[in-house]
Amino acid sequence: MRHLLAAASVFALGLATTAHADEGMWTFDNFPIAKVNRTLGTHIDQAWLDHVRGAAVRLSTGCSASVVTGEGLVLTNHHCVRDCAQDLSTAQTDYIKDGFSAARREEERLCPGMQAEILTSISDVTPKVLAAGAGKTGLDFVKATDAVASEIEKSACAGKEAQYRCQVINLYQGGQYKLYTYRKYSDVRLVFAPEEQMAFFGGDPDNFNFPRYDIDFSFVRLYENGKPVATPEHLVWNPAPPRAGEPVFVAGNPGSTDRLLTADQLETLRDLSLPETLIQYSELRGRLIRFGEESPEHRRTAETRLFGIENSFKALHGEEQTLADPPFIEAKRRADAQLRARVLANPRLKAEIGDPWAEVAKTQADQAALYLPYTFTESRAGYGSRLFSYARTIVRGAVERAKPAGDRLPEFAESRLPLVQKNLLDDKPVYRDLEQLQLEFWLTKLRENLTADAPEMRTFLGKDSPEQLSERLAASRLGDAAVRRQLWEGGLKAVQASDDPMIRYVLATDPAAREIRRQWEARVVGPTSRAEQRIAKARFAVFGSNTYPDATFSLRLSYGKVAGWTYRGQTAPPFTYFKGLYERATGQYPFELAPKWVAAQSKLNPNTVFDISTDNDIIGGNSGSPLINAQGQVIGAIFDGNIHSLGGAYAFDPAVNRSVAVSTAAITEALDKVWGNRALVAELTSK
Amino acid sequence: MRHLLAAASVFALGLATTAHADEGMWTFDNFPIAKVNRTLGTHIDQAWLDHVRGAAVRLSTGCSASVVTGEGLVLTNHHCVRDCAQDLSTAQTDYIKDGFSAARREEERLCPGMQAEILTSISDVTPKVLAAGAGKTGLDFVKATDAVASEIEKSACAGKEAQYRCQVINLYQGGQYKLYTYRKYSDVRLVFAPEEQMAFFGGDPDNFNFPRYDIDFSFVRLYENGKPVATPEHLVWNPAPPRAGEPVFVAGNPGSTDRLLTADQLETLRDLSLPETLIQYSELRGRLIRFGEESPEHRRTAETRLFGIENSFKALHGEEQTLADPPFIEAKRRADAQLRARVLANPRLKAEIGDPWAEVAKTQADQAALYLPYTFTESRAGYGSRLFSYARTIVRGAVERAKPAGDRLPEFAESRLPLVQKNLLDDKPVYRDLEQLQLEFWLTKLRENLTADAPEMRTFLGKDSPEQLSERLAASRLGDAAVRRQLWEGGLKAVQASDDPMIRYVLATDPAAREIRRQWEARVVGPTSRAEQRIAKARFAVFGSNTYPDATFSLRLSYGKVAGWTYRGQTAPPFTYFKGLYERATGQYPFELAPKWVAAQSKLNPNTVFDISTDNDIIGGNSGSPLINAQGQVIGAIFDGNIHSLGGAYAFDPAVNRSVAVSTAAITEALDKVWGNRALVAELTSK
Repeated sequence: MRHLLAAASVFALGLATTAHADEGMWTFDNFPIAKVNRTLGTHIDQAWLDHVRGAAVRLSTGCSASVVTGEGLVLTNHHCVRDCAQDLSTAQTDYIKDGFSAARREEERLCPGMQAEILTSISDVTPKVLAAGAGKTGLDFVKATDAVASEIEKSACAGKEAQYRCQVINLYQGGQYKLYTYRKYSDVRLVFAPEEQMAFFGGDPDNFNFPRYDIDFSFVRLYENGKPVATPEHLVWNPAPPRAGEPVFVAGNPGSTDRLLTADQLETLRDLSLPETLIQYSELRGRLIRFGEESPEHRRTAETRLFGIENSFKALHGEEQTLADPPFIEAKRRADAQLRARVLANPRLKAEIGDPWAEVAKTQADQAALYLPYTFTESRAGYGSRLFSYARTIVRGAVERAKPAGDRLPEFAESRLPLVQKNLLDDKPVYRDLEQLQLEFWLTKLRENLTADAPEMRTFLGKDSPEQLSERLAASRLGDAAVRRQLWEGGLKAVQASDDPMIRYVLATDPAAREIRRQWEARVVGPTSRAEQRIAKARFAVFGSNTYPDATFSLRLSYGKVAGWTYRGQTAPPFTYFKGLYERATGQYPFELAPKWVAAQSKLNPNTVFDISTDNDIIGGNSGSPLINAQGQVIGAIFDGNIHSLGGAYAFDPAVNRSVAVSTAAITEALDKVWGNRALVAELTSK
Repeated sequence: MRHLLAAASVFALGLATTAHADEGMWTFDNFPIAKVNRTLGTHIDQAWLDHVRGAAVRLSTGCSASVVTGEGLVLTNHHCVRDCAQDLSTAQTDYIKDGFSAARREEERLCPGMQAEILTSISDVTPKVLAAGAGKTGLDFVKATDAVASEIEKSACAGKEAQYRCQVINLYQGGQYKLYTYRKYSDVRLVFAPEEQMAFFGGDPDNFNFPRYDIDFSFVRLYENGKPVATPEHLVWNPAPPRAGEPVFVAGNPGSTDRLLTADQLETLRDLSLPETLIQYSELRGRLIRFGEESPEHRRTAETRLFGIENSFKALHGEEQTLADPPFIEAKRRADAQLRARVLANPRLKAEIGDPWAEVAKTQADQAALYLPYTFTESRAGYGSRLFSYARTIVRGAVERAKPAGDRLPEFAESRLPLVQKNLLDDKPVYRDLEQLQLEFWLTKLRENLTADAPEMRTFLGKDSPEQLSERLAASRLGDAAVRRQLWEGGLKAVQASDDPMIRYVLATDPAAREIRRQWEARVVGPTSRAEQRIAKARFAVFGSNTYPDATFSLRLSYGKVAGWTYRGQTAPPFTYFKGLYERATGQYPFELAPKWVAAQSKLNPNTVFDISTDNDIIGGNSGSPLINAQGQVIGAIFDGNIHSLGGAYAFDPAVNRSVAVSTAAITEALDKVWGNRALVAELTSK
C-alpha cells in the first residue's frame, strides 16, 4: 500500500486558489448553495441548511452524530461509543464483545464523559479577537488571544450556562474567529451497540479499506432532568438505500486538517512529528498487544485503548506517506511562493502583511528543539493514563481556578469548566495493570527522548526506574470518583494535603511541565499564530472568501455523491451487500461472525446495501456524521474513509478520496432480523 | 537529542572528492601510509600493517576482534558474545546475568555458530567479475556476477577448504572486486564474559552516548583439533592507557555504510526503508518488553533479542535524523550533479559511462513498489524466528545443492556451504514462547503491509489467523539439532517426506517468496548494481583512487587520535574513570552495579581510565575491534560510537564523530581486582 497516495500530489497546488468539485468542509454560514445546486441538480435552501444544522450533533468525546427521532434518539458510530461501552463493562459483562441493547428506557445507561452539542447560532467575533492580539508577540500574543476568547465565551453564555456552551472557533488559521453557541446535553445514554466484531468486522486489516462490511453504528439518547429530550427537529430515517451517483451530504465535525499549512510546516510534520509519533504508537501498540494476550481480562481492559492506537497509527501512517512523496511538498512550496509574490507585488498588502512565510520558516527550528520535551512532559504526558490525567486536572484546576480569569490556562477558563468537571467526576473504571503499562511506557520514552542526563529527568524520574515509579503511581486512589470530587471541591488546600502518590507526583513535576509549555507557547505557538493570521489575510485578499477553512472539530457540511473510484485500473464499486460479509468471513479473528449473525444469515436479504462509498470530503471527527440525501433524510452514518482519504489531511483528491458510511438500510434490516429489536425499528420508522 | 546531527550536512559534499583528516575505513592494500605518518607523526610501515592484519579477527556473527596472546586468546566485546552466552545459558544458569568465567581450559565452551577469520591475502579479481556481467542486464546481470564470484571463491580455496575461507568482496559499489582469503577457525570457545549489567551499564539510555562507563569486553579462544591454537602473530597487550591526542588505529570490519549512494537512493532510505523499519522494530520492541515482564524466564530468553532490536533501532533512528535534515540530501544532490557534469563534459567518459544517475533514479519506483513484499516474504521473513530460519535453510539447501554451481542461489554456493552448515547444525536452544511471539509479529505485519487481500496472503496465511498459525509453527521439532542434521543430510527427499509443521509451511510458501526475490533482483538489484559500477568508474576517473570504499564487513584500518569533542558549547573529554561509574550508579536498572563491583569498589583505583573517545571512523561491525597504538599494541576494544557517529553511515564529520572503546587498563584492573582472574591477567601480561 506504499506510495498509493502519490497521485494526490498534483492537486496540492490548486488548494490555495479554489476548491474542486465536491471538495470542502464548509461552514454553515458560508455554504455555496447556488454552486452545489448547480453541480448536483439539488434544490437545497436556507431552510434545508437550518433543518440539518438543528439535527446535527457534536459529541464531546470526539465524534459526530445526528438526532433521528422525536424522542432524542441519536445515531452515531459504534466506535464513537466504544469508550462508553468499555466503561460500562465489567469482568462479568462485556458490552464491547456482546453488544448492548436496552430493552426499556430505564435500561439506557449514562455514557461517562459524553456531552452532546447542537449548534444554534454563529456570530462573527473576528475584529475583537484580532484587536486583542494586535501589536503583541510571543507569549503575550497567545495570552491575549486566549483571554479575549474566554471572555467572549463567558459573556455570551452568561445566565444560560446550564443549557448552552459558547465556544470561539478559530477558522482559516486565524483568518476568522466565530462564536458558536451550542445547546448542550450532558446526560447522554447508551441505547444500542452491536457486537464489536460486527461493527469492526475485518479489524485493523480492513480499517480504511473498501469494499467494507462493517455495521459501525450505535444509538444514544439525549436526556434532561432524567427524561428523554423531545426533539421535533430531527432527520427523517429513510431505510431505502441511495442510488449510485445520487447527491449526498455529510453534516459533522471534521477534527483537523492541515491543508493551509506552509511547505515548511509540512516538512516539520514529515521529518519530525509524524515519524516520532508513528514510532511511539508502534511501541505502545506492541506492548498493548502482548498485554492483551496475557489474560482475557487484560484483553478486555486494553482493547479499546489498542483500537484507538491502531486507528491513529494507520491514519497517521497514511498521512506520512502522502508527505513523503517529494512532489507533494514541492507543489505546496510553489503555491506558497505564488501567494507571497502576489502580496509583495501589491504595496498595500506588502505593508500590511509583510513576510509571514519567512517567520513560519524561522519558527521550525524552535519547534524541532522543543517538540520532544513538549510532547513528553505536556501534550502526551501520562500517555493515556487516566490517573495521571485526573491528577493533572485536579492539581492544575486547583491552581488555575484561584486565579483571575485573564491569567488562567485557557482550558480552565470559566466557560470551559463545566465539561472539565464532568470529565473528571463522571464514574469510569480505572484498570491498574493498564495504568501501569501506560505510565511505564511514558516514563521510559520520556527518558529515552530527553536522554537520561536531561535536567528534566531529575524532576520526572530522579533515581527511580520507570518500572518502579509506574508501579507506585498506579496505586493512586484517584480511580474513585468520590476521591476526585473531594479534591476538586477542596481546592488547592485539599490537594496539597493529599498523600495520594499521583497527586504528589503531579504537584512535584507540574512546574517543570508548565515551564516547557510556556517556552512552547512563547517560541512556537505565538510566532506561528501571528504569522498565520497574516497568511490568512493574504489568502482572503488574493483569492477571496469563496473557500472553506481547515477542519477544527466544528460543524461543517460537505456535499458529493454516491461514488466508487478507479485506481491503477482497479475499480471499487460504491456499494457492498450483506452477502459479501458472509463471503469474507473466515471464522478467524478479525473475520469471525458473531453468533447472532451466523444464525440470522438465512433470514437476511443478501442484497441489502451494507456499506456505501461517497466522494464527500471528510476526516476523523466526522465519525458518526449522518449521510443525508437531497431531501434532508438520513440514509447512513459515516464511519471511515478509504485508504486514499488519509492524504486528505493535506489535500483532497476528487478522483480517489472517498468517505465510507454504513447504510440505514443495513441498520434497519439488522435491527429487525439479527437483533429482533422491533422497538427501535418502530421508533425509527414511525414517521 | 533530535537534529543533533544537522552539523554533519556540510561535510556531505566533500565526500565525493577526497577524505578529510582522520576519515576513512581503508583497505589494507590501499592504506595511505605516508599521509598518515605525516598527519599523526607516526612511523608505521608495511611490516606494521602486516602484523596488525595477522592479528585482526573477523567473527562470522557480525563482529570484530583481535588475537592478544600466543595461545589463541581473542579480545572482543561482551555484546559480541551475547548470543553465545545466551545460547549456553539455561533456566538454571544465566551467563548473561552472572557473566562467564572458565576456571580451566576444559571449561571454555564452544560458541554455537561462531567462526573466527583472519585475513591472509588480498588479490584483485575486478576484470574477471566485470567481464562476467558485461552486456547483461536485470536478473542475468545479477546471476552472472553471483556465479563468477562463487566460481572464483571455489577455485581459490580448492583443496584447503577445511582451513580457509575465500570470499569475493565488492568494493566501491562495484568499482573493485577483491578476493579475500581468510584462515578460518570454526571452533571458538567462550573464555570470559562480564556481567551484562556492567558490560552494558546504563543500558539503552546510555547506548551511543559518551561519557560512558561500560566494561564491554570478553575473551574467546581459537581451537583446532580440540586444542588451543598457537598464535605467535598477536597484538601485545598494553595495560597502560593512552594520552589525549595520542595517535590510535582501529583494525576491524565495519559492516555497512552508504556514503557513496546517490541522492535518490538516500531519499528512498529516508522516505521508505528507514521509517518502515523503525516502525516495525518499535512494535516488536514493545511486544518483547512486555513479554520479558511476564516472567523471569521470559525475560531471560528474550533479552538478547530485545538488546539487538533496541540497538538497531537507536542506530537507525540516528541515521534517519541525519537524512531528515533537508540540507544533507540537497548537498548530496549537488555533489551527484557535479560528478555527472564532469563525465558529460568528457566525450570518452560520456560514451563509456552514460547516465547511471538517471538509471538509479528510475529504479527507485520499482524499489518502492517491491520493498514491503520483499522485506516481509524474503529479507526479514520469520522476523527472527530460529525455527523459520532453520526450515528455510533446510528446504532451500535441499533444492539448491541439487543444482549445478552456476544456477544456485548465491548463499548456497559451494564456497559458502561450510558456514551455512555450521550455523544450521551447531546446537542452540529454541524458546518456543519467543518463537511464537516473533512468528505472530511477522505474520501480522506481513498481512498489514501487503494487505489482507494481496494474492500472497492466500499462500502465507490462507484462512488462518497469525495467532493460530504461529502457535502451530512454533511446535516445530527443528529446535533439535539431530532433526536438522537428518533433514540436511537427507536432502530433498527427506525434506519432502517431513511432517514437521515448519518444514511443510516453508515448502508451501517458498515458491512465492522466491518469486518476489526474483522480481527484486531483476528490477532493483540488477539495474542498481549495473549503474553503480559505472558511477564507481566515473568516481575513479574524476577523483582518482586515493579514497576508501563504503564498509562491507571486510577488514579495514582507520587512523585517528584519542579525542573528545565540543558540540554547541559543551565539551566531552576523551576519558572516563572508574570513579565516574560509582557516581552514576543509582541502584536501579539499568544503572545498578553487579555485586562483585559493589564489593570491589575500595580495591579499585578510582582514577583508572575506563572508556575512551577517539576520532577514528568506525561503524557497526567494528564492535570488538582492537584499539591500537602507534607501536602496534592493543590498548582497548572499540564497542560503540557517540550519538553523532550515527550519521557516519552517510558522512563522516571529523568535528563530532567519535568512536568509543573500553581500555585495556580498565579490563586488566577489573580482571585482577573485581573478578580475581589472575590466570587471564598472567596470560595477557606475560610478554
